[in-house]
Amino acid sequence: MNAQLQTAVVGATGYAGFELARLLARHPRLAKPLLFTREAGSSSDLTEFYPHVLGNGQLKVNPFDWQKLSDDKVELLFLATPHETSREWAPKAIERGMRVIDLSGAWRLKDESHRAIYGLHDADAAVAKEIENAAVYGLPELRAQQIPGSKLIANPGCYATSIIVALAPLVRAGVINRSAGIVCDSKSGVSGAGKQPTSTTHFVEVADNLSAYGVFTHRHLGEMVEQLELKDDELTFTPHLLPIPRGILSTIYVRLEQAMTVEEIESLYRRFYSNRAWVRIFGTKLPQIRYSLHTNFCDVGFNLSVDGKRMVIVSCLDNLMKGAAGQAVQNMNMMFGFEEREGLN
Amino acid sequence: MNAQLQTAVVGATGYAGFELARLLARHPRLAKPLLFTREAGSSSDLTEFYPHVLGNGQLKVNPFDWQKLSDDKVELLFLATPHETSREWAPKAIERGMRVIDLSGAWRLKDESHRAIYGLHDADAAVAKEIENAAVYGLPELRAQQIPGSKLIANPGCYATSIIVALAPLVRAGVINRSAGIVCDSKSGVSGAGKQPTSTTHFVEVADNLSAYGVFTHRHLGEMVEQLELKDDELTFTPHLLPIPRGILSTIYVRLEQAMTVEEIESLYRRFYSNRAWVRIFGTKLPQIRYSLHTNFCDVGFNLSVDGKRMVIVSCLDNLMKGAAGQAVQNMNMMFGFEEREGLN
Amino acid sequence: MNAQLQTAVVGATGYAGFELARLLARHPRLAKPLLFTREAGSSSDLTEFYPHVLGNGQLKVNPFDWQKLSDDKVELLFLATPHETSREWAPKAIERGMRVIDLSGAWRLKDESHRAIYGLHDADAAVAKEIENAAVYGLPELRAQQIPGSKLIANPGCYATSIIVALAPLVRAGVINRSAGIVCDSKSGVSGAGKQPTSTTHFVEVADNLSAYGVFTHRHLGEMVEQLELKDDELTFTPHLLPIPRGILSTIYVRLEQAMTVEEIESLYRRFYSNRAWVRIFGTKLPQIRYSLHTNFCDVGFNLSVDGKRMVIVSCLDNLMKGAAGQAVQNMNMMFGFEEREGLN
Amino acid sequence: MNAQLQTAVVGATGYAGFELARLLARHPRLAKPLLFTREAGSSSDLTEFYPHVLGNGQLKVNPFDWQKLSDDKVELLFLATPHETSREWAPKAIERGMRVIDLSGAWRLKDESHRAIYGLHDADAAVAKEIENAAVYGLPELRAQQIPGSKLIANPGCYATSIIVALAPLVRAGVINRSAGIVCDSKSGVSGAGKQPTSTTHFVEVADNLSAYGVFTHRHLGEMVEQLELKDDELTFTPHLLPIPRGILSTIYVRLEQAMTVEEIESLYRRFYSNRAWVRIFGTKLPQIRYSLHTNFCDVGFNLSVDGKRMVIVSCLDNLMKGAAGQAVQNMNMMFGFEEREGLN
Repeated sequence: MNAQLQTAVVGATGYAGFELARLLARHPRLAKPLLFTREAGSSSDLTEFYPHVLGNGQLKVNPFDWQKLSDDKVELLFLATPHETSREWAPKAIERGMRVIDLSGAWRLKDESHRAIYGLHDADAAVAKEIENAAVYGLPELRAQQIPGSKLIANPGCYATSIIVALAPLVRAGVINRSAGIVCDSKSGVSGAGKQPTSTTHFVEVADNLSAYGVFTHRHLGEMVEQLELKDDELTFTPHLLPIPRGILSTIYVRLEQAMTVEEIESLYRRFYSNRAWVRIFGTKLPQIRYSLHTNFCDVGFNLSVDGKRMVIVSCLDNLMKGAAGQAVQNMNMMFGFEEREGLN
Repeated sequence: MNAQLQTAVVGATGYAGFELARLLARHPRLAKPLLFTREAGSSSDLTEFYPHVLGNGQLKVNPFDWQKLSDDKVELLFLATPHETSREWAPKAIERGMRVIDLSGAWRLKDESHRAIYGLHDADAAVAKEIENAAVYGLPELRAQQIPGSKLIANPGCYATSIIVALAPLVRAGVINRSAGIVCDSKSGVSGAGKQPTSTTHFVEVADNLSAYGVFTHRHLGEMVEQLELKDDELTFTPHLLPIPRGILSTIYVRLEQAMTVEEIESLYRRFYSNRAWVRIFGTKLPQIRYSLHTNFCDVGFNLSVDGKRMVIVSCLDNLMKGAAGQAVQNMNMMFGFEEREGLN
Repeated sequence: MNAQLQTAVVGATGYAGFELARLLARHPRLAKPLLFTREAGSSSDLTEFYPHVLGNGQLKVNPFDWQKLSDDKVELLFLATPHETSREWAPKAIERGMRVIDLSGAWRLKDESHRAIYGLHDADAAVAKEIENAAVYGLPELRAQQIPGSKLIANPGCYATSIIVALAPLVRAGVINRSAGIVCDSKSGVSGAGKQPTSTTHFVEVADNLSAYGVFTHRHLGEMVEQLELKDDELTFTPHLLPIPRGILSTIYVRLEQAMTVEEIESLYRRFYSNRAWVRIFGTKLPQIRYSLHTNFCDVGFNLSVDGKRMVIVSCLDNLMKGAAGQAVQNMNMMFGFEEREGLN
Repeated sequence: MNAQLQTAVVGATGYAGFELARLLARHPRLAKPLLFTREAGSSSDLTEFYPHVLGNGQLKVNPFDWQKLSDDKVELLFLATPHETSREWAPKAIERGMRVIDLSGAWRLKDESHRAIYGLHDADAAVAKEIENAAVYGLPELRAQQIPGSKLIANPGCYATSIIVALAPLVRAGVINRSAGIVCDSKSGVSGAGKQPTSTTHFVEVADNLSAYGVFTHRHLGEMVEQLELKDDELTFTPHLLPIPRGILSTIYVRLEQAMTVEEIESLYRRFYSNRAWVRIFGTKLPQIRYSLHTNFCDVGFNLSVDGKRMVIVSCLDNLMKGAAGQAVQNMNMMFGFEEREGLN
């Protein structure tokens, strides 16, 4: 085997960053990844934050340091950082010759009206614009051609992944009655809200409960309509907070332009994803959250009304895997010519 | 105070039946309720099934016995029984001069095509038809006029209650664009599936999970379209099984015929429910499941898109209270001229 | 009925304080309680923090203000505040002629070596000493004589209540082999850790998990050995954090001085608690957490080894009711000559 | 690499059997395992029971058939079957020249008084006795010498594993004051109760709850005292049912013969397990259930009282891995000379 790829992760102690660190640490094509936090302080071991990995060999976590990236010849930098940080650091990393996979929302949106919600400020607007134009939305199921040559991958949002994967084959085939509107009702586990303790993530507030939030205003909306090339008012999206640690289930409602059969629809999905490793088509059996937990699969199933004109699609994924870290590894595999499944089984 | 009303419950050891027994036992207008199971055997105490009520005074549970109903001069019989049993026993009870509140689906539907899903067989079709015609769908918020004089109340389904309460003011006002379709995405706690252990209610199958089921085929669909006077294909309903013991949240999506303001919609709701005790209007603050747990409230809130043409409504209730036992007590209160809130605080 | 008692609660927005506010608001002997937070700011309504109570009548929450207590002639002040605050404010309230029920640990301990763990500092040590001596440990099952005349009730800790209630009859009867040691293994829901979001109460850290903490060092240890008059090394206590919102189960292990029968032990318990309303003796059937949730009961059951010499006791309670707010109301009932059950059913 | 080992699993659709099937299917030293159920019927695919494995290659499940075992030259048979079945089938398999790893309790106990609790009936008592004598209690951390040559491994109980691993170093070193008694308070996730739906495993009965059961009578007690060579009344064991799908935490209380230091105890543990791959010593940091979930580790930590004479030990494991299927694979690795970690990372 050739030389191993040197990677680094910034934000390795958050939920997605930790999942990523674990995946990279056992990926057969990689050197041991460098792990960083944004917090100043002395270096420590990942077991201090996650005793789960005790016995898997030492994984040092250091305060972030550009110099160390150069010294260790890092070729690929993962940013599991807040969007403001990602917006600032991605250009710097590219300037230093690294390729970047960013897990935040900083580089996902092309349309300014969508991006406004992040309130991003660029030190150098021209550079930012240029990098933004070059950034590839890293959904491997849609962007298999662009990812290999990309310098900057904007790793998709977890909700957006579950919805775009479920809708893209139908939208591209033009079978949906868009004027009736598409409804996306998503439910996510709490790890999607991040590791910072807040009243929203307090056990007593979440347990035995379900709540909707961000109706008409969630940040992932922009990604969905841009990638699916829909008008803003054609898609309505409501996320909900589930009393479970991880996993997303999206229930999606569409009306079809004309009646279709189950076989036609299933075949449409299977053809669309025939070359892709990480989408499982369930047909009319509906996926459940637990089927894809701790895997990189996005599972898709659907039911059709008797008259063949209304369709309910259910898609599931693990928000920390296909919804974040697993997808980042899948993107890395495609960027560097590894097999799409490597390090993800 | 006058003589106390004598009631009886069949099916007092199921989840809804137990909740009902507890409510009746402390209702100020009632004599001690008679409690029955359909199982043969000797009589026992409710604490054998539910040690929760130890210390609240003895509550005997007896095998069902028509004679005992007569001997104790029962005036009101609650059936917390499977629909086949309710279909058979309600006519017999009415014949014996009792009034009946049935918690099953046996008498809720007027349209034969909807009722077919229950596969009901009537010994005497003519009698059944007559009783069916007399049965009142016991949603007090819609049927306040008919309930007082009724002999047979068909207590609504839990999902149906959450959805009809949320939609009725809008449908009656004619503001919904029905041709675009109404989407109802509901999520329920596990007690809604009953006390019988099945693989569906096994803790390991439910915990850390979410699953959709009964898409396009759930039994409550008929109630919704009949009560809201919609066409079958105008409403799409998907129930989901939540990893919580009790509570329902329904997220409902409509497109409006023309743009409306938040104030117009809130006012429309408030006027519609101005005389009703058990609906709480949250305005644009969205209710959560835990707010209404262990209460008889149905909570309703909504959000409106910026252009005032798309609307997401969230309604919540406790499936064992407003979705079953609490609503049955509310119906009893109206049947017998008690105050709507009595015994429910 | 006579004039209603005027009460006030400081800390009404925390979990125990809110539970207390709800109980007081519907207690038949009380005027509407005054509710305070320690935070500065404008007054608000309790529904802003807990939409659960919407529709129950307005419950204003004001920034704390001694003057308002005087103006409204408050006779009884509940402190649901951190122990430092309780230590400072209880003497001031007593000086102003109020009686006090303190839900913190500030006044529970008589032995300085036990109290050291709270790190309390008294502005006037002599006054503090005097008040400390007058404070009554408010476990109604043990202190029924002292509570009525008391000016300051130290409401017991939740763990301590579950353990002292289970052990007191045995310890007082002298049947335990103390030299072998008593083991108390307790498990608590997350609301016991308070409403402040921390990494310990983050949903993702608690769900699907169980953890022990505070072994040999928990603050409630002092209460247990003082009230049971044990030596420090005779009782070993380990609390655990359960993935549930509320409830405590304590499993307690003792060796008996000589063999006993189930009947002897059950009778010993029944006699000890024969006049008390809020202890339920389960005999050899073991209580579970859910039996006492949302009630003020402490449930006690036990099993005996075949040789009659080893005993395992299980006691359960709701940490926000019998473990905090409910017990505070029970104490109030006894202080003011109300029936022990009033306002708690 | 040499020829791959041919294995088979009976009971592949239960929780432990499925976990085992997954582990065997990706073990590098094995041919594709044969999977059986005890139910008659046609063969099916494992994805029908567990859609989780969709996309991992077909895993057929067949009705059990001795002939197929011979035809496919199975060398090692795993029995994930009820104890009656295991008692009957293990001798038959050995007679046919296979080696057996039995996950039930059928062959774990040597002492008849302990075994009585299983109510086993042997068709040929002499053969059963002979096989029983040859059976090795498959706790690799205690029986590393006997496992390689064994024909029949009795895979330990999940509770027993967590407790024996935690206590063996102390008991063997003779540092425990046995006359004061050892207390083992264990808490287990629901998968330990099996896949069969019962009222005990119903979501509504388990959620928001904790319950103790089997006090003084649990079947694993015999294993603990036999393997630790204790007298029956020296160890008291109480299992509890946790509202989580998987994982066990045992809290163990001992009094020491004489005062010890933390260093002495930690060193005692480290020496005892110095050659073993699957025990992690946490020192005075206490393990939590989630650290070992989905791994084969048994984690052990402890706290010591200030006087060095009382000790609380906490041990955790995943009941389906180190408590069942993972340990079975570990046993297989030792039986066939593979590395102890193989197929378990």
